[in-house]
Amino acid sequence: MPKIVDHEKRRVLISEATWRVIQKEGMEGATVRNIAKEAGLSLGALRHYFSTHEELLLYSMNLVKENAAKRMEKIAMGDLHPVEKVLRLLLEMIPTSSETRIEMEVWFAFMFHSLHKKETYVKYDDGIFTAILKMFDLLEHFGLLQEGIKKEEEAEILHALVDGLAIHGLVEPESLPRLKAEKLLNLHLQK
Amino acid sequence: MPKIVDHEKRRVLISEATWRVIQKEGMEGATVRNIAKEAGLSLGALRHYFSTHEELLLYSMNLVKENAAKRMEKIAMGDLHPVEKVLRLLLEMIPTSSETRIEMEVWFAFMFHSLHKKETYVKYDDGIFTAILKMFDLLEHFGLLQEGIKKEEEAEILHALVDGLAIHGLVEPESLPRLKAEKLLNLHLQK
Repeated sequence: MPKIVDHEKRRVLISEATWRVIQKEGMEGATVRNIAKEAGLSLGALRHYFSTHEELLLYSMNLVKENAAKRMEKIAMGDLHPVEKVLRLLLEMIPTSSETRIEMEVWFAFMFHSLHKKETYVKYDDGIFTAILKMFDLLEHFGLLQEGIKKEEEAEILHALVDGLAIHGLVEPESLPRLKAEKLLNLHLQK
Repeated sequence: MPKIVDHEKRRVLISEATWRVIQKEGMEGATVRNIAKEAGLSLGALRHYFSTHEELLLYSMNLVKENAAKRMEKIAMGDLHPVEKVLRLLLEMIPTSSETRIEMEVWFAFMFHSLHKKETYVKYDDGIFTAILKMFDLLEHFGLLQEGIKKEEEAEILHALVDGLAIHGLVEPESLPRLKAEKLLNLHLQK
């Protein structure tokens, strides 16, 4: 029987190793050599799955985004009250669990890395702004959005608030437990 | 006449070279070698001013903080209407000029760098939260703060909003011109 290796599965494993390296050593430690070591592969074997450093990083980052999107879709499809649903969705964008924490460390590290690699990476879009606009539509549909609200601008404010809370949760995890993040988001949304 | 070199002035010049290197190449490019090159010094000469990489980085970051603090103090001491003053102060924390832009790129890069160097650097504090609390005191003093407001929590929300806007301004400068940042902050403050 031929040796069967699930190519896609291996790429996911390598991506997860990439995340761990970035979390431990930052983007400056995320060399192909270090990632191969963390994944338990030779450099040659790693190159079989990703031919360039950029390809590996992009794939790893897209996987972060996809994983978050899947969790959020599950919540969106669920049977919660719209306000509770919006809160739960927003909390997925803030590091309040080990899963979201590593995602955001990696995501922000990559975002700053790509800032000065503009020729290599396309423009950053984490999809959060669009997601927030959809949340507003949901609230509006159920008559739960304040009348006359400036949706675009309020979405930009909420987007910045969520990213700011994400940064604060990363830098000082103990200062932003999930309950507190929830309380602050609630206070903002109720206004 | 002996050759007189202003030690402190030279440290400032090296710090400014450090900022430029970080802005161009990110923290991963901010090696002592690259910084010496950017500053037009030999490695030996640079080591005369900073004996370690960490010392150099810390000094450079403190200089960012000091420069911002000086500008903000000038605004705080000025003769503006309290609401206008608060807005102007908040806008200093968002990259809406080339000066604040390089400061913030460097500051965030350092913040993420220090995330996984916890044994080397002390806890991050940019002083923004304290500054926001003082702004609320100012508004309160002039009877301009909404009664019954939860000051601590509102300050945390505003702090996150400002940092989120700063991130967005860094990543997509064209999406956050100064006027728009001002408009969003105003909208948030008026609620």
